[in-house]
Amino acid sequence: MDMPLYPGDPLTKGVGATKDAKRIDAKTAPTLTKIPVLPISYSDALPLLKNLDGAVVPDSWRGSLPTTYHFGGKTPTVRMKLEFNWDMKAIYDVIARMPGSERPDQWIIRGNHRDAWVNGADDPLSGLVAMMEEARAISELTKTGWKPKRTIVYAAWDAEEEGLIGSTEWVELHADELRQKAAVYINTDSNGRGFLGIGGSHTLEKFINEVGKTIPDPQIKMSVWERTHANQIVNGSPTEKREAVERPDLRISPLGSGSDYTPFLQHLGIASMNIGFGGEDGGGSYHSIYDSFDHYTRFGDPGLAYGVALAKVCGHATLRLANADSLPFEFTNFAETVSGFATEVMRLADTMREETRATNQVISNGMLYSVQDPTLTFVVPKEKGPVPFLNFAPLQNAVAKLNESAKRYQTDSTSKPITPANRRELDRLLYGSERLLTRKEGLPRRDWFKHQIYAPGFYTGYGVKTLPGIREAIEQRNWQEATEQIEIAGKTIERFAAEIDRASAFYVWLQ
Amino acid sequence: MDMPLYPGDPLTKGVGATKDAKRIDAKTAPTLTKIPVLPISYSDALPLLKNLDGAVVPDSWRGSLPTTYHFGGKTPTVRMKLEFNWDMKAIYDVIARMPGSERPDQWIIRGNHRDAWVNGADDPLSGLVAMMEEARAISELTKTGWKPKRTIVYAAWDAEEEGLIGSTEWVELHADELRQKAAVYINTDSNGRGFLGIGGSHTLEKFINEVGKTIPDPQIKMSVWERTHANQIVNGSPTEKREAVERPDLRISPLGSGSDYTPFLQHLGIASMNIGFGGEDGGGSYHSIYDSFDHYTRFGDPGLAYGVALAKVCGHATLRLANADSLPFEFTNFAETVSGFATEVMRLADTMREETRATNQVISNGMLYSVQDPTLTFVVPKEKGPVPFLNFAPLQNAVAKLNESAKRYQTDSTSKPITPANRRELDRLLYGSERLLTRKEGLPRRDWFKHQIYAPGFYTGYGVKTLPGIREAIEQRNWQEATEQIEIAGKTIERFAAEIDRASAFYVWLQ
Repeated sequence: MDMPLYPGDPLTKGVGATKDAKRIDAKTAPTLTKIPVLPISYSDALPLLKNLDGAVVPDSWRGSLPTTYHFGGKTPTVRMKLEFNWDMKAIYDVIARMPGSERPDQWIIRGNHRDAWVNGADDPLSGLVAMMEEARAISELTKTGWKPKRTIVYAAWDAEEEGLIGSTEWVELHADELRQKAAVYINTDSNGRGFLGIGGSHTLEKFINEVGKTIPDPQIKMSVWERTHANQIVNGSPTEKREAVERPDLRISPLGSGSDYTPFLQHLGIASMNIGFGGEDGGGSYHSIYDSFDHYTRFGDPGLAYGVALAKVCGHATLRLANADSLPFEFTNFAETVSGFATEVMRLADTMREETRATNQVISNGMLYSVQDPTLTFVVPKEKGPVPFLNFAPLQNAVAKLNESAKRYQTDSTSKPITPANRRELDRLLYGSERLLTRKEGLPRRDWFKHQIYAPGFYTGYGVKTLPGIREAIEQRNWQEATEQIEIAGKTIERFAAEIDRASAFYVWLQ
Repeated sequence: MDMPLYPGDPLTKGVGATKDAKRIDAKTAPTLTKIPVLPISYSDALPLLKNLDGAVVPDSWRGSLPTTYHFGGKTPTVRMKLEFNWDMKAIYDVIARMPGSERPDQWIIRGNHRDAWVNGADDPLSGLVAMMEEARAISELTKTGWKPKRTIVYAAWDAEEEGLIGSTEWVELHADELRQKAAVYINTDSNGRGFLGIGGSHTLEKFINEVGKTIPDPQIKMSVWERTHANQIVNGSPTEKREAVERPDLRISPLGSGSDYTPFLQHLGIASMNIGFGGEDGGGSYHSIYDSFDHYTRFGDPGLAYGVALAKVCGHATLRLANADSLPFEFTNFAETVSGFATEVMRLADTMREETRATNQVISNGMLYSVQDPTLTFVVPKEKGPVPFLNFAPLQNAVAKLNESAKRYQTDSTSKPITPANRRELDRLLYGSERLLTRKEGLPRRDWFKHQIYAPGFYTGYGVKTLPGIREAIEQRNWQEATEQIEIAGKTIERFAAEIDRASAFYVWLQ
């Protein structure tokens, strides 16, 4: 499935796949790829590899199986018998809702998928049982008379492995209501022993750092935040080490795709996070028959100690979000992060310009040809068009504005008073702000993906592309589109900054 | 054999191992190591590896054999039967000399070893046959009545593989005469298809670049210099690419050890080079039974085309050195190179200081311990003493002086006249200059190695350490010795610079 185009039911793009939904013919579904693909095991692959008899492949093509890797050559024929099941199947999402006492129309959504490829102890159950434990604890809390101020929604998605189908279809079906009410979505796809890993919206970075500082690590007498921070200082890359020393918050990673946050974040613009522990859990069993309860409890998370820690992190986050006087969105970390993305895309253009110039030179002066092994075939590539200097000013001006607006909100929200009525209005504006990072036209060639800051790579799959419109246009050497996308990103960020200014205006000294 | 202490006969350090030489008892020979070492084949190693049954080793300890790598554990016993032959054996160097017609007391020495571990087609014969072809060509030249101005010495060394024994003993036996007469030594240990590789004294860098520009590549219509230069631009590291564009000369690499240039360069201070082609010859056969004529002529250098190219490079170099009006030593490239070495050792101290500070901090604040997997054993290392700021001024002043002196010689030698009498004096001074880079006390803990700019690593073997006294003292955190060695290197370089000034003084406008 070509998921970077759109996830979910291939036949019902953009609408909920209810019984009576309008469906396209599977033959025309753009996300159903035409070449069948199936991962196979070592023992099935080895005889195929051993029977290839062409030239020996270059070093970088070699795998780890005990055979010499060859190109095809005069290869024996492999006959494949393909069988597909095209039946329509019902899938089942499980949704539980606890209405908020004060602001029932503001939803904190906590979800994870419940289906697995095979056994699924790690993926998805390690994340799902933590979520169910949170739900149980909150249910216990209500027996004391406690109620959440905002509505809490728990969701267990079906058919994630087949293409984020359960979550996508639910989001598409309830899109209008979610646009109005959804404040934050928290996902926990897989968990294990080790360090805290967080991906998501950078407007929540400061908040989730605060939560992490309050949860004890199950193995070492410190908070999970402290241990993760220490790990960055001790084992991080030079950049991570420097940032860990200089920056007050752990940097959360931007989200690409690969789990159920995608429809929330990238289709509707709902601030989202994916949270899980790992790094001391071995790994390597997920999506296989080895992802068993036995394997997981022996190697993944013995004693399920990090399952408890995950329930604490996400349970605290959910409760704090549900009961905060104002939703804890914060913009200076977001502004700094987007500023970094902008620097990256500008450097990308500079680097490509220099590399193109250098490569074209060694093509045109014959150097590239002269250093090839003349006993082997080498086709000199064509020269590429030069990389022009692009007008990044709209992006740079917008980022400058964003930084100012973020700082002003930080100052005003911590130094000025706010009335209860304003607080309620502010909330709506805060959780709606992520919506302003989307654009109804979506990204080029994939209008389902509407977020202008985070997207999975159109050509590269799960991995994130930040400022995707600009970045992918540059990567594809489409300078016209890059210039258009710089304008679009600039306007998107300016609009977002203006909304932060409106948020700041709620904090005023009363007459 | 612990060759970085001294090479050659372990029983006759510093003197020629003639029949009647004074020998030490083998039991006390410091270069004969106490743990016997023998490389073994895959098929012998595999059963040993397979029978280890301790914990699985960390990733970086794993090799490529098809087995899981374990620590020893409750390992089955291996019984080894050791046999040594302690007989004294005669070895045979073959030396040919053609006396110079004008300056017979200035020797250009061209050598390579003739012994091999097994078949030896690549190592050493590919380099030896090129040398023999040069000797034959020069012999043909003399039939036309031609004579070299300076003496040419051809040498085929024995017992190189057992520890540079043939060359070292000959150099030690003739040390006094060589100090007086040896101008340059050229070695060619192994050769193959591909690009020109040169290691050696940087006072010869400009000269050998000039030679390389005149020799046609056997495969591509350009000089061997041009093709090697193109390869650096196309396939080099970022630094190599930049240097290849900005620098007029190919950078030759400093020499560590591993072949017969060592006694000439590092014991006596005779400017030396090791030259060979490679990069398209596959490699991997040397020191094994596969280093056969058949393998070499099929994969190493089909048609022996690069054998001819090597004979041309080294033959031209030898003839130009033998017949030059003044020996083509040049000092600006040497000065620039030493300046780079000085920057490296200063950075090394800075980097170690910063790393020590950072590591001590995570030890003392407990971070290092906190991020270890608590289910495994981890012993927190002791804090290391801080790295002090060292007084590099003596080195920096000397390098500044060297740069000035080198530039003055370049200017004077190309713009002012010189008398024939001065030319002869100048020659003696030029080829003696490398001697001034040695110190009779040698390097700390290894007085046989006398060169202060180039040495094999005391702990690391073949690989070169430049400014070895300073660099190894810093690496070993011996700050007292580092300070002393900075003084020593400074004085050595100052003395060398003063000699260049004396060389410049031979160029004068006559009254």
